[in-house]
Amino acid sequence: MNDRLAGALVETAPDAVIENVKPQVDGGRFAAKRVVGESVVVTCDAFAHGHEKVACVLRYRPRAQGWSEIPMEFLGNDRWRAAFVVDTIGPWDYVVQCWPDHVESWRESFARRIDRDDAMLAARTGAQLVAASAANASGSEREILTRLASILADERDIGKLRAAAADETAFAIARRRAPREGGCESAALSVTVERERARFSTWYELFPRSTTGDSRHGSFADLEERFDAIAAMGFDVVYLPPIHPIGHEKRKGRNNATTAQPGDVGSPWAIGSAEGGHTAIHRELGSASDFRHLVRSAKLRGMEIALDIAFQCAPDHPWVREHPDWFAKRPDGTIQYAENPPKKYQDIYPIDFSSKDWRALWQALRDVVAHWMREGVEIFRVDNPHTKPFPFWEWLIGEIRAENPRVIFLSEAFTRPRVMHRLAKLGFSQSYTYFTWRVGKDELTEYFTELSADESREYFRPNCWPNTPDILPYHLQNAPLSAFRVRAVLAATLAASYGMYGPALELGENRPRDPGETEEYLDSEKYEIKRWDLNRAGNLRPLITRLNHIRKEHAALQSDWSLAFHPTDNAQLLCYSKRAGGDRVLVAVNLDASNVQSGWVTLDLASLGIPADMPFTVKDELSDAAYPWRGTRNFVMLDPAKAPAHVFSVHVG
Amino acid sequence: MNDRLAGALVETAPDAVIENVKPQVDGGRFAAKRVVGESVVVTCDAFAHGHEKVACVLRYRPRAQGWSEIPMEFLGNDRWRAAFVVDTIGPWDYVVQCWPDHVESWRESFARRIDRDDAMLAARTGAQLVAASAANASGSEREILTRLASILADERDIGKLRAAAADETAFAIARRRAPREGGCESAALSVTVERERARFSTWYELFPRSTTGDSRHGSFADLEERFDAIAAMGFDVVYLPPIHPIGHEKRKGRNNATTAQPGDVGSPWAIGSAEGGHTAIHRELGSASDFRHLVRSAKLRGMEIALDIAFQCAPDHPWVREHPDWFAKRPDGTIQYAENPPKKYQDIYPIDFSSKDWRALWQALRDVVAHWMREGVEIFRVDNPHTKPFPFWEWLIGEIRAENPRVIFLSEAFTRPRVMHRLAKLGFSQSYTYFTWRVGKDELTEYFTELSADESREYFRPNCWPNTPDILPYHLQNAPLSAFRVRAVLAATLAASYGMYGPALELGENRPRDPGETEEYLDSEKYEIKRWDLNRAGNLRPLITRLNHIRKEHAALQSDWSLAFHPTDNAQLLCYSKRAGGDRVLVAVNLDASNVQSGWVTLDLASLGIPADMPFTVKDELSDAAYPWRGTRNFVMLDPAKAPAHVFSVHVG
Repeated sequence: MNDRLAGALVETAPDAVIENVKPQVDGGRFAAKRVVGESVVVTCDAFAHGHEKVACVLRYRPRAQGWSEIPMEFLGNDRWRAAFVVDTIGPWDYVVQCWPDHVESWRESFARRIDRDDAMLAARTGAQLVAASAANASGSEREILTRLASILADERDIGKLRAAAADETAFAIARRRAPREGGCESAALSVTVERERARFSTWYELFPRSTTGDSRHGSFADLEERFDAIAAMGFDVVYLPPIHPIGHEKRKGRNNATTAQPGDVGSPWAIGSAEGGHTAIHRELGSASDFRHLVRSAKLRGMEIALDIAFQCAPDHPWVREHPDWFAKRPDGTIQYAENPPKKYQDIYPIDFSSKDWRALWQALRDVVAHWMREGVEIFRVDNPHTKPFPFWEWLIGEIRAENPRVIFLSEAFTRPRVMHRLAKLGFSQSYTYFTWRVGKDELTEYFTELSADESREYFRPNCWPNTPDILPYHLQNAPLSAFRVRAVLAATLAASYGMYGPALELGENRPRDPGETEEYLDSEKYEIKRWDLNRAGNLRPLITRLNHIRKEHAALQSDWSLAFHPTDNAQLLCYSKRAGGDRVLVAVNLDASNVQSGWVTLDLASLGIPADMPFTVKDELSDAAYPWRGTRNFVMLDPAKAPAHVFSVHVG
Repeated sequence: MNDRLAGALVETAPDAVIENVKPQVDGGRFAAKRVVGESVVVTCDAFAHGHEKVACVLRYRPRAQGWSEIPMEFLGNDRWRAAFVVDTIGPWDYVVQCWPDHVESWRESFARRIDRDDAMLAARTGAQLVAASAANASGSEREILTRLASILADERDIGKLRAAAADETAFAIARRRAPREGGCESAALSVTVERERARFSTWYELFPRSTTGDSRHGSFADLEERFDAIAAMGFDVVYLPPIHPIGHEKRKGRNNATTAQPGDVGSPWAIGSAEGGHTAIHRELGSASDFRHLVRSAKLRGMEIALDIAFQCAPDHPWVREHPDWFAKRPDGTIQYAENPPKKYQDIYPIDFSSKDWRALWQALRDVVAHWMREGVEIFRVDNPHTKPFPFWEWLIGEIRAENPRVIFLSEAFTRPRVMHRLAKLGFSQSYTYFTWRVGKDELTEYFTELSADESREYFRPNCWPNTPDILPYHLQNAPLSAFRVRAVLAATLAASYGMYGPALELGENRPRDPGETEEYLDSEKYEIKRWDLNRAGNLRPLITRLNHIRKEHAALQSDWSLAFHPTDNAQLLCYSKRAGGDRVLVAVNLDASNVQSGWVTLDLASLGIPADMPFTVKDELSDAAYPWRGTRNFVMLDPAKAPAHVFSVHVG
């Protein structure tokens, strides 16, 4: 203790204290997240003992560049705040510095001195402080300070002294140039800055092999045929299940049958065969050149291809033969297949991340991602990241981002909350959520309040999916189309990033394999080629198109933090709003897909930024109907047969 | 990143994670606080990736002794908890360790295997794990594990295998002795353990010089004459303003007059004269031997003397001459007196803690505290600690506690909240609070909820004072005796530690020097010898005696964390309870000192631990009246002319 203090003190007692700096994830162990153009609003408590004033600055930089420094604003009660805009992609650092502000302390007490002799004497103390600042200044600043110091030291006219002490300009310089003795610095903190799509993205998932419209195996070229339609619906990410050769050994049949029949195409997640592994392309989809064409073709339409990273192998994956050490063995010497007793997944070998040969393994896995990145892919959806070690992901994402900081990773971890949060902290840009299973008013309100307002929002960005090829949630099993509409509206307006297993959602595919027993689809597309009649009557394409259009038009829907819920007097009516500056979107959803519901909404006008007595107009962007509203209480009635929701833009004044 | 991981991994991927360990003050920078016999309940999140189970232990020790280790209890959702009792005074350390629990993971999955061949094979994996545990065991534990491993490896009867896998005793040993590969450890955290009085104390402040009952200067012997009465009232700490020689130079007169008249005794806080400084005793109080007698005399009555540590000097303090460097100079070479422009305190020189000679200065100040500690004093009330550098207090308290961990420090920092909290973190055992100015129902509820429930309770222990020699709060200026009664009840029952400027509170001294302008008393005892007629009719001695008796009888009132407020339908009726196991105290206070108030209390029976439909009896420990109550709603009426409050003990069943 003695030594530490003695070392820290040198010749003065450093007494400024910085506490409670935010944003801060686990004491600085992890970075906060932002996208380009966003602000980082930094707050802290900073103070010194007694009545000593302190100065506080925020320093920030894109990593490996020089520091910028701005003064922090004093908020009262020892609180400080400053903000900086992150205008380039990549890691940024920030730190708070605080030191006793002797100049300001002097000035504040000088102004209270009423006794002439007392003030004259105090002025000489001020002169010493200003002279010390002058020694740190140059050019015209130095001249100003030197002149001020000499007035404070020598002037005998008390009026002129007071005038000199009131010189805001000169004293601003004196404070800025003052020595920072007795100061301290916060822990170094960081922000990962990504491109905007990390925050605002609209995903469409489909199987390329099911794009011919008949039973033939689709190719990348067939997929490209669908791009105009997908782009017209307003999607910006086209996410493909694994595109690699599918294992033949132990291949699963339709409906997950243990034995495949001749002609069964198998699951794309059973990766690898004699034709190649994670960097190869399934022959019937096309060539490497076709893939590059696909990527370019998507880009031309304002979309990106997202690939699936599923680090597991079919038994005939080349690695099984080339690197047997990368797989755990059972006591009989056979390779340990995936299992969750009594279930066995003999068609999938998990990778042994703690293999003795882990260094080569990890690098091979990194090279898989790097390969596709070099093929033009900048978004990866990672399959089950929670079943692989945490340090692996932190390392892999760091390696990839060092080469290309534009790369976005989506974590498909449907698991316990703390594990999902840990993966987000480690670097995943976005995360799948529990939205898929949150259907009631209270649970939606609670969950989205957590997602938008808890401190975890600094690192956990939700991406909400009503369905996936793995998940036909119980509440959508055999449910009417109107239920799918409700879920589409909720996902599109509650979350800045959302996605869908597209063809199934467009058509309201609701047939479960084992109703109420599992969330598997009947005749799941995971095991067969599907023919989707996308023009079938009653499809959701118009609604989805409209929703995605509204999302593009309204900045309010492009970020998550402004979400506010508004009470309603009906347990089936959910009302919420988002806001970005003057852009306001207010949504009222009827959660009951079968019955008309109506009720009174009590608006939290403050969260909308609307003065209590100002009239405003709400325009339903789904129906184009507009209503004049006023005050907090307003009536809503929604018929699921017509429209699941109002998605209002709000026009004030 | 690569290197860090490579270093950490060695040959396996360490994947267990520990987050959010509590208690934890500023990430472990400061210690939490407890008193002997209390528990430290440690919680954390701990988990590994995927479905891997983890084991979690809490390790703790009195510093410099060996570690004890106990398993943590799994609470679900990756939360863990364990508790240890701190049974000796001094610093303790604790840390959480977590590692993948392969044994338990194996056992859990083995139980789910239904296929015989599959189970036989899996048993051999179990055998390997148990054998690894056996290698860490000895004696009979080793024998048990070796036998178990050999059954799992070789037994061909599936029934016998399952029986072996169900052996709780053997597997508990296997888990305990398992290698902790892939594990991790939390940051090292600490607890400062003090004696019980740090948490539960009852303070009486008086000026020794005002104890003769007439205008003569009192001595330690006169003070001892009062000890029986103070002890009979139930106090356990007698706190004395500074007992040192009082400066003659610039001495203040009565009512803080700039010039003293002949015979004026001066302020005890203007410390030091030619007769001595901070280790000397004011001649008229007595000798060092008299002081030691005083300390022993208090102890015989179950009380302790608390001294005042006021690190400032009168102009004629010996240090001013001997160590001029320890005081800041003004530009004219004179010593800087204390000031808060336009106010000047020419009778007090602040010490310059950042003096060039600070090392010698700090040691001298430490020696002052050490001197009185060696004279038998183990409680210090520190005057204005917030006007001295934070590092100084951390160092000083550490030095003193290293010599005698029984020493208790009370921080008299009536300043901004974050400064008060910082001092508490640095080591002060107790802190003065804003209670003195919290009078309304809402503000009392809010403030005491913060004190008892916020995380700051881990380090900030309140000591509540209705008045001090410096503070006759506005709400007590010219207030009736009943108002003083209300404040006494609140302090004694809301806070486990409370104190009073005794004679003034006993008599309801309510005369301000400048009503509504300052909080100074008229004819303040700080500047003159007072004659207190402590037997005057209407004094508070019976109430105070009763309150302190109730505090001693009821463990519920001896700690702060159990405080719960109960709603009432009258803004002047405050109702709250405290609980320690089966001991429950429920208080209803009429905050209106002038009018009868009545209303309905809605009890939070859960916080009292009373089943909803169980009848209970409340016995007013002030009046001895008892009432049968039932359910949540109960009626209360309080006449301030008779009693300011009910202080009920609650008897269930």
